[in-house]
Amino acid sequence: MKKYRSYFRPEIDAMSGYTPGEQPKVMDLLKLNTNENPYPPCPAVLDGLKNADGERLRLYPDPTADKLRDTIAEVYGYERENIIVSNGSDDMLTIAFRAFTDAERSVAFLDPTYSLYPVLADLQGCQYIKIPLKEDFSISNDLLEKAAPANLLVITRPNAPTGNNIAIDDMRKICSGFDGVVLIDEAYADFSADNCIGFVREFPNVIVSRTVSKSYSLAGLRLGFAIACPELIEGMMKVKDSYNVNMLTQYLAELAIRDQEYFSKTVAKITASRAKLTSELKALDFEVVDSQSNFLFAAPPDGDGEKLFKALREQNIIVRYFPGESTGKYIRITIGTEEQLQRLVDFLKK
Amino acid sequence: MKKYRSYFRPEIDAMSGYTPGEQPKVMDLLKLNTNENPYPPCPAVLDGLKNADGERLRLYPDPTADKLRDTIAEVYGYERENIIVSNGSDDMLTIAFRAFTDAERSVAFLDPTYSLYPVLADLQGCQYIKIPLKEDFSISNDLLEKAAPANLLVITRPNAPTGNNIAIDDMRKICSGFDGVVLIDEAYADFSADNCIGFVREFPNVIVSRTVSKSYSLAGLRLGFAIACPELIEGMMKVKDSYNVNMLTQYLAELAIRDQEYFSKTVAKITASRAKLTSELKALDFEVVDSQSNFLFAAPPDGDGEKLFKALREQNIIVRYFPGESTGKYIRITIGTEEQLQRLVDFLKK
Repeated sequence: MKKYRSYFRPEIDAMSGYTPGEQPKVMDLLKLNTNENPYPPCPAVLDGLKNADGERLRLYPDPTADKLRDTIAEVYGYERENIIVSNGSDDMLTIAFRAFTDAERSVAFLDPTYSLYPVLADLQGCQYIKIPLKEDFSISNDLLEKAAPANLLVITRPNAPTGNNIAIDDMRKICSGFDGVVLIDEAYADFSADNCIGFVREFPNVIVSRTVSKSYSLAGLRLGFAIACPELIEGMMKVKDSYNVNMLTQYLAELAIRDQEYFSKTVAKITASRAKLTSELKALDFEVVDSQSNFLFAAPPDGDGEKLFKALREQNIIVRYFPGESTGKYIRITIGTEEQLQRLVDFLKK
Repeated sequence: MKKYRSYFRPEIDAMSGYTPGEQPKVMDLLKLNTNENPYPPCPAVLDGLKNADGERLRLYPDPTADKLRDTIAEVYGYERENIIVSNGSDDMLTIAFRAFTDAERSVAFLDPTYSLYPVLADLQGCQYIKIPLKEDFSISNDLLEKAAPANLLVITRPNAPTGNNIAIDDMRKICSGFDGVVLIDEAYADFSADNCIGFVREFPNVIVSRTVSKSYSLAGLRLGFAIACPELIEGMMKVKDSYNVNMLTQYLAELAIRDQEYFSKTVAKITASRAKLTSELKALDFEVVDSQSNFLFAAPPDGDGEKLFKALREQNIIVRYFPGESTGKYIRITIGTEEQLQRLVDFLKK
């Protein structure tokens, strides 16, 4: 047998790869680490699954997912030509990085932000520009100046893992001032007081990306979608895998997006729990970043996020910890049910 | 509003994108164009769908799909470390192109072959080398010489759209003689008299890629898998999207792969129908390429594939036609049920 030598591109060998939040296989854990929704998907999805036509699975799915795109267009006030769907939001980010970046075309993003972006940049072999946020995670005045060399600017709003929003007026200035594509990653925007979905009507360089993972309780299904002008959508369609969204996901995501009443009720429960947990943590002298998402970024009074993360782990409570100068004080807590959050608060009080 | 200007990489603007086989939305068509299986998925999949735990969809799927990989490993005689899964076989091809090719590292493949490969090369910005097959679609003696500059060699076996196999001894020579990765795309190998899955034990540079789309009647589900040495799998895991295979696909594909009895029965029905259709077409003076797959590549007596394709279309019988010097004589016919193929033969007899 021949000996193995590395056949990979040097960039791949040099990468360590993205580490997703832990998916523990033990069942009695309190899992508040990957921003999943604690409530089940809407009844239409549960019924739809029971009534799905399994025999049809022998056929390929619709490669352009027209029925699902029409539903998204209708619910969000756009046309089919403004919509592209993907195998989860991560697939949409991959599509965007492959479409707009390469060795000569760099990407810019905030720091801290979603830790997948630098991994995607390494994978694509493009340079990246990190734009540091201020200590309170708001933006600096020189954001546009720093981002200027890039062809793609990713703004995560609400930001992760911090949970806060860049003000909507500042967003407008960024989109009109940046000469390249602005991808607004709105994975958490359904929990926010406002969002940028209307920007697509104003700016030909804006892509707003969404997911059903959090607000629709469908992380297991993998469905992301993006809204942009038809020219951007058309080009991104060339980059996506032909059959990137499977048949059951197209079918069930449509049922979920149609049920806006259940959706709003679930989101309202989570934002109410978020408000309650924020007060309780503040009463315990935690520093809590103003959250517009379904998680809190909170620093204990001693400013040692790692110690608290480990202590919670010993109680089978899993949150997420991000080492680093600007983030190491904090832990990130997914908003669970009232009972789950009570268990957390009870422990913290001790 | 700002005017739209192209923000895309020039390669993307220049591309026309891959055209998947037509997925007609009219229901009374005889669809023999995208190599779907005419038989339903196995009963365990149909039951599994009814009994799926919809509430779990609120959670992310297992990013490394360990349970499914263990099942594949068990059924195909390997270990979990030898297996990677993907969002259909196309996702696996994307992973391989991203892992092994770039501006300096080219890819080589046969001509004719699966028309997605040059699209993936353009997308990745790598050069590609087309290695022409002889007129009877067998390989030339200079295949290795032609492929030598590449870092990735894709051999489709059975080949598409021709359906024939490169002899297994020639495959062995190719794998030992090529200094780079050989990706053996075995999407159709379950219909073949032999396959290269055992090569992974012999060659550290071989990846064998499979799909449940055809032989397991699950094109709608999107599940591809590849078998290779642990070093190759580990690197490819860094390239794939973290959650590239959704929860229902992991669950249902496992049920399908466990039911080898149903699988073998379905495959046997299709290979029997293939033999019968081959004889019938030959009796009508068609030239039929020896097929090891679930389709036939067949040329009518007048050698005008396009004319026949159009005539069949008028009868609501959809097959696939590939324009071009070496392929234009032929049409590609998916093996359907006995009744479906009878309808085709009845028309051809007229």
